[in-house]
Amino acid sequence: MLNANCCYHLHVPSPEKTLISRIRKLAGSGKRSIIKGIGDDSAILRPPSGHDLLVTTDFNLEGTHFRREWHPADSVGHRCLARGLSDIAAMGGEPIAAFMSLALPADLPQEWVDDFLRGFLALAKRFDVTLAGGDIAESKSGILADIVVIGSAPKEKAIQRSTARVGNIVYVTGTFGASAVALKALFASGKNSKRLPHSERSEGWGRHFYPEPRLAIGRYLRKHRLATSMIDLSDGLSTDLAHICEESGVGAILNQNLIPIARNADLDLALHGGEDYELLFTARKSAKVPVEIAGIPVTEIGWTTREKKVLITDCEHPAKKLAARGWEHFKR
Amino acid sequence: MLNANCCYHLHVPSPEKTLISRIRKLAGSGKRSIIKGIGDDSAILRPPSGHDLLVTTDFNLEGTHFRREWHPADSVGHRCLARGLSDIAAMGGEPIAAFMSLALPADLPQEWVDDFLRGFLALAKRFDVTLAGGDIAESKSGILADIVVIGSAPKEKAIQRSTARVGNIVYVTGTFGASAVALKALFASGKNSKRLPHSERSEGWGRHFYPEPRLAIGRYLRKHRLATSMIDLSDGLSTDLAHICEESGVGAILNQNLIPIARNADLDLALHGGEDYELLFTARKSAKVPVEIAGIPVTEIGWTTREKKVLITDCEHPAKKLAARGWEHFKR
Repeated sequence: MLNANCCYHLHVPSPEKTLISRIRKLAGSGKRSIIKGIGDDSAILRPPSGHDLLVTTDFNLEGTHFRREWHPADSVGHRCLARGLSDIAAMGGEPIAAFMSLALPADLPQEWVDDFLRGFLALAKRFDVTLAGGDIAESKSGILADIVVIGSAPKEKAIQRSTARVGNIVYVTGTFGASAVALKALFASGKNSKRLPHSERSEGWGRHFYPEPRLAIGRYLRKHRLATSMIDLSDGLSTDLAHICEESGVGAILNQNLIPIARNADLDLALHGGEDYELLFTARKSAKVPVEIAGIPVTEIGWTTREKKVLITDCEHPAKKLAARGWEHFKR
Repeated sequence: MLNANCCYHLHVPSPEKTLISRIRKLAGSGKRSIIKGIGDDSAILRPPSGHDLLVTTDFNLEGTHFRREWHPADSVGHRCLARGLSDIAAMGGEPIAAFMSLALPADLPQEWVDDFLRGFLALAKRFDVTLAGGDIAESKSGILADIVVIGSAPKEKAIQRSTARVGNIVYVTGTFGASAVALKALFASGKNSKRLPHSERSEGWGRHFYPEPRLAIGRYLRKHRLATSMIDLSDGLSTDLAHICEESGVGAILNQNLIPIARNADLDLALHGGEDYELLFTARKSAKVPVEIAGIPVTEIGWTTREKKVLITDCEHPAKKLAARGWEHFKR
């Protein structure tokens, strides 16, 4: 826990205790469901009664999930928390608290830590999430953050991946490929993102650096019982749809002409690019799904099928198998 | 979450998806309060109604918290989980679920991962804790594990650090310094622990490699409303008592003749050694605290005071200030 209660801790940018005090001060006391935040052996939370608890945890490792020369520190903080909030959105849940375990290199400038915390806490504030604990350690190489987000949903109402049924309609929110376009530009330039001229910045710049978790949409779908299953799109449409199909024991067929492709992106990036942090959900064909929820377009892209394959068609040729290729840029 | 839902994941000892399947199989479906474990965007838990939720998170980093040449993989797995369980014990709580984020070097032998999981899951099984999720990533240097343990305690009954009152009696469970004796032997030998002859192994060997979280004692103290405050002793008696005093706004005076020192240890290791994973608690002087709880001796070692200093006396000389020196061996 974020309480200096760790065995062999040493030189972090501020000495550990000072850093914890700073974080504790910045985190504030939080909302009513936080009985005790930072400063004890465990945090004490009191989720709404009659709710199930949602818990999600995500690693964010320098070189794997972000690069210091590409991602400003406040973007890293934002993205860390956005990933967890997006997981809560995908369950139709409400976030309550976040826990942040940070391992930092001894030579990391204090300014980086401050900017990271600023990005993290600004997003936390917007969604009324309390930073309620974590851990601090020194890292021998690179920045490591493990973020836990705890949320809740009314009992038995969380929307799972495993509950799609044959003959459901497959919907997605927003558009696809914008984040991948930005990342592609970064890879191509190899440059420090801060020095990239504005003309080289894609439309997906903001989508990549400051993704927006779709909590309002998840909540709407849960409240109106519209979704039979749901997942957030972090790996890429092809991979995440495969997860839904695998967990639900169904297949799917997509109409590639219906995929909402972001400006400057293409079908390949839209299908496999990843990090769009949109939602994919399935609904019964009788469900009245709005064409827009919370200002974001909702698009029908296909159906679930009894045959346990994920297929895609252009309506001109026979349907082909859609490989789950996710985002593979960092792969060797 | 432990669901392959991560952006740029690559070569872990088993390819990521295979490793997740193995963990999912080993973890099992768990107890009734786990509605959904591994395999969705979030885990879904249903803690007992009328309970507050306890959340604790601890980093376990190779080179900082353990060394591969000293600690067998199953000990690392055991210790990772024991730290979190000890935090839940210190609140008087019951553990429910654990979440394990693992970053592993690409060249780590599969055998190490299997042994680690064996150690982790054997302890989890003993305390009826379900491994309900986590994350997997590749590490560029060393093994990293971030462990979250979620537990619960009846509403408003969790025992905090900040609630000691002036004139309380200070108690500890068990004996102190055994783990530090073992670590000292490892430092002195610089050897691979598996090759250390039995004669060089201290009595604290098991205490260091396989610490026992004091959950039964924490539960007893909470049920019988005996403790006014509590903390687990991971950093060392001197440092952890300082935490209680700081959070509660009190001081303390210890009688050094009363400190229960483990065989082969000395007063210095007992006060500052750390990693004993015993409990320190305070109680009103009228409280009927047993001399033994769940087979472990409970010892009175001093009192809390209005003067906000931590003092220690041998009863022969004036009391001296007890510096919070914790465990400092790894410090540069």
